[in-house]
Amino acid sequence: MIKRVHHIGIAVADLPAALDFYVDALGLTGPQHREIVTAQKIVATFIPIGSDDCEFELLQPHGSEEGSVHKFLAKRGPGVHHICLETDDIEATLAELKAKGLELIDEHARSGARGHKVAFIHPHSTGGVLIELLESD
Amino acid sequence: MIKRVHHIGIAVADLPAALDFYVDALGLTGPQHREIVTAQKIVATFIPIGSDDCEFELLQPHGSEEGSVHKFLAKRGPGVHHICLETDDIEATLAELKAKGLELIDEHARSGARGHKVAFIHPHSTGGVLIELLESD
Repeated sequence: MIKRVHHIGIAVADLPAALDFYVDALGLTGPQHREIVTAQKIVATFIPIGSDDCEFELLQPHGSEEGSVHKFLAKRGPGVHHICLETDDIEATLAELKAKGLELIDEHARSGARGHKVAFIHPHSTGGVLIELLESD
Repeated sequence: MIKRVHHIGIAVADLPAALDFYVDALGLTGPQHREIVTAQKIVATFIPIGSDDCEFELLQPHGSEEGSVHKFLAKRGPGVHHICLETDDIEATLAELKAKGLELIDEHARSGARGHKVAFIHPHSTGGVLIELLESD
């Protein structure tokens, strides 16, 4: 069902300072992808991690309305926001999790960054971790 | 310098409930490794994630003394505790990060779970994320 860790989402208050750490200090100099994700009210900056397929996704609030990343930063400060796991079939995975009684933020997939199908599982059902599911095809 | 995400450390208050989620709900049924890490006052349970080399490390306080995971749980509750990145040469990486002015919790590597050389970078220098570095050879 779960294939791999697709990315690790980090809420950042100061993107240049975050890039100083991830790119200049850690040396993660692979090609970045930056995208405004309107539905989530964020700008996402994806940074590949070494030779792995996994990426960091740096999340900054975007726009005048307050989205979930804005609220996260106000409440907890910058840090790990979510873990994204790739699955072969996101609708089947969501149906299975729902049948097992898990609390889903999204009962069906919606479009996330780069047009991937994504859905979030509520931290109530995961032991405090916001888990994103993603289907890339 | 950084090769890949080696594991994602999750502070758990209730290990059976965490295993219900990761193993039974998500289906991460690969071989687990469990180890008491005396220096960190924890029991660590490693769970492979899909076909990836990456793992979840479920961290539970262990023993009568209060370690950093106990304090983390008391302050923030269960959730993502650290991200572990594998490096080819941990001492060279630490020296480089120190030269760049980053605050290191461990200026030199020490022995972590499974005898790997590990060291932590302080969240002050990473934008709020506790980063563990690991050299596996």
